[in-house]
Order: sequence, then structure tokens, then C-alpha cells
Amino acid sequence: MPEFFKVVRCEDALAMLRDNFPHQRAEEIDLSAALNRVLARDIVGQEDIPGFERSTVDGYAVRARDTFGSSESMPGFLTMKGEVVMGEQPEFSIREGWCAWIPTGGMLPPGADAVVMVEHTERLGEDTVLVNRPVGPYDNVIRVGEDARKGETIFTQGHRLRPQDIGVLAALGLNRVEVVASHRVGIISSGDEIVPITCTPNIGQVRDVNSYSLAAAVEKAGGTPRVYGVIPDNMELLTATLAKAVRENHLVILSGGSSIGQRDFSLKAMLSLPEASMLFHGVAARPGKPTLAVRVDGGLIVGLPGHPVAALMMFEIFCAPLLGTAAMRRVRATLTANVASQAGRDDFVRVELIDDGERMLANPVHGKSGLVRVMSSAQGYVHIPYEKQGIKAGEPVLVTLF
Amino acid sequence: MPEFFKVVRCEDALAMLRDNFPHQRAEEIDLSAALNRVLARDIVGQEDIPGFERSTVDGYAVRARDTFGSSESMPGFLTMKGEVVMGEQPEFSIREGWCAWIPTGGMLPPGADAVVMVEHTERLGEDTVLVNRPVGPYDNVIRVGEDARKGETIFTQGHRLRPQDIGVLAALGLNRVEVVASHRVGIISSGDEIVPITCTPNIGQVRDVNSYSLAAAVEKAGGTPRVYGVIPDNMELLTATLAKAVRENHLVILSGGSSIGQRDFSLKAMLSLPEASMLFHGVAARPGKPTLAVRVDGGLIVGLPGHPVAALMMFEIFCAPLLGTAAMRRVRATLTANVASQAGRDDFVRVELIDDGERMLANPVHGKSGLVRVMSSAQGYVHIPYEKQGIKAGEPVLVTLF
Repeated sequence: MPEFFKVVRCEDALAMLRDNFPHQRAEEIDLSAALNRVLARDIVGQEDIPGFERSTVDGYAVRARDTFGSSESMPGFLTMKGEVVMGEQPEFSIREGWCAWIPTGGMLPPGADAVVMVEHTERLGEDTVLVNRPVGPYDNVIRVGEDARKGETIFTQGHRLRPQDIGVLAALGLNRVEVVASHRVGIISSGDEIVPITCTPNIGQVRDVNSYSLAAAVEKAGGTPRVYGVIPDNMELLTATLAKAVRENHLVILSGGSSIGQRDFSLKAMLSLPEASMLFHGVAARPGKPTLAVRVDGGLIVGLPGHPVAALMMFEIFCAPLLGTAAMRRVRATLTANVASQAGRDDFVRVELIDDGERMLANPVHGKSGLVRVMSSAQGYVHIPYEKQGIKAGEPVLVTLF
Repeated sequence: MPEFFKVVRCEDALAMLRDNFPHQRAEEIDLSAALNRVLARDIVGQEDIPGFERSTVDGYAVRARDTFGSSESMPGFLTMKGEVVMGEQPEFSIREGWCAWIPTGGMLPPGADAVVMVEHTERLGEDTVLVNRPVGPYDNVIRVGEDARKGETIFTQGHRLRPQDIGVLAALGLNRVEVVASHRVGIISSGDEIVPITCTPNIGQVRDVNSYSLAAAVEKAGGTPRVYGVIPDNMELLTATLAKAVRENHLVILSGGSSIGQRDFSLKAMLSLPEASMLFHGVAARPGKPTLAVRVDGGLIVGLPGHPVAALMMFEIFCAPLLGTAAMRRVRATLTANVASQAGRDDFVRVELIDDGERMLANPVHGKSGLVRVMSSAQGYVHIPYEKQGIKAGEPVLVTLF
């Protein structure tokens, strides 16, 4: 019986994939199209933000020391000397005992070093303002460069842009941004028993789940999927499809061939391509031991298990990181059941997260290799590293969210 | 000085918005375009999955009881009676003492009720298989309907589709899926001091952050943003832009007008539209008290604060839920610093999440109303409800992730 002949550790497999994947390409795009894209380089501030001393409230610009000692019963009296107009540089300054109306966002006039909120003042006629609470220097004021300094690194390369980050880039005046170019990923399902999802499977057949779930996973990871459909176990056809997919994409994913016979078949097809060389054949991981990778002329092919749960899990571990995905989001939770593993294997245990009102619980989703349950109820996974033999119920775990 | 005249609680504000927002519309789309879309109706299984008894391993289909008592030192002897071919219905059955080769995913032959993994067997010539470990009934087998039963609700309305969910829908044979139609959202920035982001702001001016961050937030929430740019404080122009945006969108968001004078101005423009009626004017929330909503003929306008941090926070609380966003993801963490609030106000405190190796810490992101820091370092927020006066350092909190 054929054996895996180059089984490697997960971390080594990932390192080999990275080494054999074309370097990340960058492209410049409009900021308005940058949601969820990954920065190709560090963003360094080109100016101080804010660029002027700005009020954070509606109120009166003052010299802080003129308000010291003010209270409801003993208000301070200030002389009204003007009004700061939004968007304009004040043309007066504040001297001892003076104040000026200033709106939120307005520029502090020279001489003023704080703002009293309007709620803590009372206007007496045209010229006088009563202050009934003291302010300290720079209270209710953002100072020049307080938010971000010129030359400061605001975001580092690899950061995935969220709406708030896009807001920050807008504040920096960047209407174009250099992001990691989207990689094209070819997806092939193989196996005589796989039928298109619109078919009702006959006995012994299953629907082509992987073309859909892997394409969505590619999209989620920032790549551009291209689906080649289901290829039956025909060497010529599979080889030709692989060759075409390699030409048309940066990465090719072949899923299927879970049984030993089919695995050999897929492997033969991959190795028949020009300049093919095996990177690894089998990983010390569960689920997904049959994962393999072959480098070929002009491309890289990753073979994933046929079982949809294992295929998607191995995609997350080995393929998503190649596509420029930023670090995964992790949360802490308490494991609800013992999970066995073996030393000498990385286990990826899918868990459902349940908040019991006090703690976040991570509930392992088992169910043989069941499809629907395992796929749909898990919100993340717990990684049991190579050295560990399992995790006991009640232990704290880090859950990587899907 | 003008006051807020219809300040409401957050939950009441959201209820009013929901009541005055057009009912959710559904559209049918291809499954391959369904990533991140929200289901418009429950998904009910139309068939048992799997539809046949299936092996989860490569091995030998057996009657479990024939393997009882087998061990390495005392293997059981079974007679090889055939080979299950992938994708085909076996044309033989398994009787006492018989077995058949079966690949992963293969259909169990009649009579067999378990599969012995190939690793626990040894082949002796053509006809005999040695079994050196017992299996129980249905070991390494998925039974008919074990994964999902016909008539069972697989996903409920409002569920947002992840790659694994798309896999499940593929397994169910659904190549078209009914999702909540994307809502068009018009975005207007107002204020004389706001300049396009490509401009270098003069003293007293700020860049138009909100057009970018809110458009991205709309996109993230599943809507389709349409940006109308910066409208100066000109009543005619603002009113005309609002009217156009109402005609062209399901929801209109006007941000800006943080100072009292500008707020009045924006409000007057909204109320001048046909059949305008104020839903609320001010919410008992921080940040974002100036948030307001006006219902007009054929539409709904939400006024958000001009400050980008508050605008984005209030969008999350009041607008994202209207666009069909599924329930937010929440995680548990430990607060690292006291956070003061006031009873009679909902506070939304932005936090940075830090894993200290044992616990997930939620570090409040302060910094006056600073923009860059607060926006870019927070990964989520803690909601301090209406009744509470604050949360102490060391207390467990629920963090809603951005």
C-alpha cells in the first residue's frame, strides 16, 4: 500500500509554501476601494495631526489660570473679546481676563490655552461671561501633533484595512493607497464520485462542496477565485486542467482524492507537469493529513483533502496566509470537554463559542467527519500544538476565529 | 441657546429607526456570490445528509461483531468478498465473517455496519484480511441523515454567510439563495470647515474623513454606499442634496454640524423636506449625543456627529443594524482601567484587545477626542448600559468586535 513519503510538520509545510510562492505584488488603489485590503507598506504620517490647536467642545477659549478658583458660588468674570469662526484663523488673541466663543473643532486663538465648556458658563449681556468651574491648561483642547506626529508610523505593512483605518488614512490625506495585489487562485475539484451541486447525487455520489466553500474562503482571504469545476479521474483531463490553471493563476488548489487510490492519481497528474517537484506529501495535522504541495514551472499547486471540513481547515492553515491575510483574530475561552491529541501532530479542533453570562465557553464540535454540523456550528478553532497530547475540559484556550 | 428637544434612550432610538425604515427586501443570487450576505429566510433541509451510509476512512467494511475480541496478538480472520467502488452502489452484501475493501466516502454494502481502518488490518493473499483491533457498530461510518435530516432548519433568517456556510448550502444542493437585498445608503458630509482629503487643510479646516470611513462602514455592513461629498453651510444646496440623496437611496446619513450653530442648520435643512417629521433629536449616549433622525417623504435621514470617532460609533449602533447586519461578534475580556459613566446614558467605550498570555485584556482607548489613536487602535467596544455608573478595572466585560 502506498505511504505518504514526505510527511512534514505544519510549520515546515507553511514555510515551504511561503518560500515557493511568488513574491507579494503591490498595487495602488483608491482609498474608497480599500476596505479589507492589506497594506503593502508602512504608512508614515507626513504632517502633524491636528495641525493646529483645536477645541473639542463648544465653549469659551480662555487662559486656564484665569479660571482657577471659579465655582458656582464664586464664578469668575471674563471679558468677551470675540468669536472664533469655524474654519478660520482667529484674528485676535486672548489676554489676561479675556475669553472668546469657540465652537467644537475651532482653532484656539493665540494666548488661550484651554476651553471652558458652555455648560459651565453663563453669558451676562454682550461683553461678560461667568465661569463657574475651573479648567487646567489644555483641558478640552487637542494640541498640535497630539494625535499623530509627522514621521510617525501609523500602520505597518500587512495591516488589513477596516472602516476606521480608512478614516485615519483620509485624515492623513491619502486618497491612494498601496495594497497587496489580489492573487488569482484556481480551484479544481477532482473525483469520479463528485457531482455538480445542482444534481441529485446517486448512491455513492456527493455534491461538489469544495468548489463553493474554497472559492468563498479565497475571496474572504482577499484572493480572486477561479473555479474549474469537477474533473473526473481521467489522467489526461486532470493534467490538462492543472496545466491551464497553473498558467492562469498564482496558486492552484486541487481538492479531492481522499482515498489512497485517488490520492496517487492526483499526485501523478501533478508530478507529470513540467519541472514538477514535490514539496511535501502529507502533514502531521488533523484534520488534513493528506495535504500535499507540488511546485511546478511557473506555479504552485496545493492538494487538499476531499472532505470539505478538512479541506477548509487546511486552506485556513496553509493557503490563506499566502494570500496576504493579516494576523487572525483570537479570543480566550474555556474548553468544555477533554480533547485528545497525539504528540507529534498539530490538531485543529473546531469549536462553537457560547457565552454563559460569565465566561466564553469553547465547545468542541465533533460528529465524526459530519459535514453540516461541523462546518456550520463552529465559530473558530483551537490549535493543539505538536508537542501536546490534548487539552482538558476547564482549561483556558485561545480560539482563532473563522 | 438651543437645546436638544427630543433626547431619547439608545434602545428607543433604534426601535424608532427600525419602525421607520423600509421593510427588508430580498433578492435571489447565485451561491457563488453569497459570501457575507445575510439570509432573507430560514434554510430547511430538503433531504437527508448523507443520503447513504458512508465510510469516513479507507479500510474494510465489516459486521462489527465479527471484529470483537480481535487484537494484535489474536487477529480476527475475515474473508474478502469484494471492493466498494467510489461513486457506485455495491452489488454484494456482507455476511458473517466477510469483509470488503471500502474507500473514504464509499457506500457501505448491505450487511456491513462498521469500517475497520486499513491501518488496523493486514492483507493475507487474495482472500483473507487480518483485523487486529475491534470496531463497534457504526464506527467510521456516517449514517443516513446523521449530519442533517430532511425538514430540519439548517440556518435561520438573518444569518450571515461564511465560507463554511456556503459549503453547507452547496451540500444541500442550493445553487441559488435568497438574501437580504443590499440597501443603498447616501452619505453627505456638511460643514464649511470640511475640505476634500486631497487638499492640505488651511488653519481651522479638517479633511473629510467621514465620507470615507462611513462609506467603508456601509460596505462592511452589507450596504451600497453612495457618496455626495462635502456640502458647505448653504441652506439651498444642503436641502437640494438631501432631497436628491433621499430619492436615490434607502437611507441617508448626514454627518457634520458638530457645533450648535451647524447642528441647527443641518436640522433646518432636513425639516424643510416634504413631510419631514423629527423622530428624535439627541440620544442619551456617549460619544454621539447629537445623533438625530428625521423621517421624510420616501425616506429616512440619520444625522451623525461630525467627529469621525463618534460618527463611526453611532453608525455601528444605529445604522448597521438597519442594513441587515447579523448579530455582532462578542468576546470576553478583563477591563484594565476604571471607566466612568453616568447613569441615564449609554456609554460605548472603545477598547484595544491585548492577550497577556493568560487572559484577554480590554484596554480603554482614551485620548481626548483624538482621531488617529482612538480610531486605529481599538478592536471593539464595551457597552456601559443606561443604568450603570461605570466599570471598575479588573471586571470582566463583553467586547463587541468592530
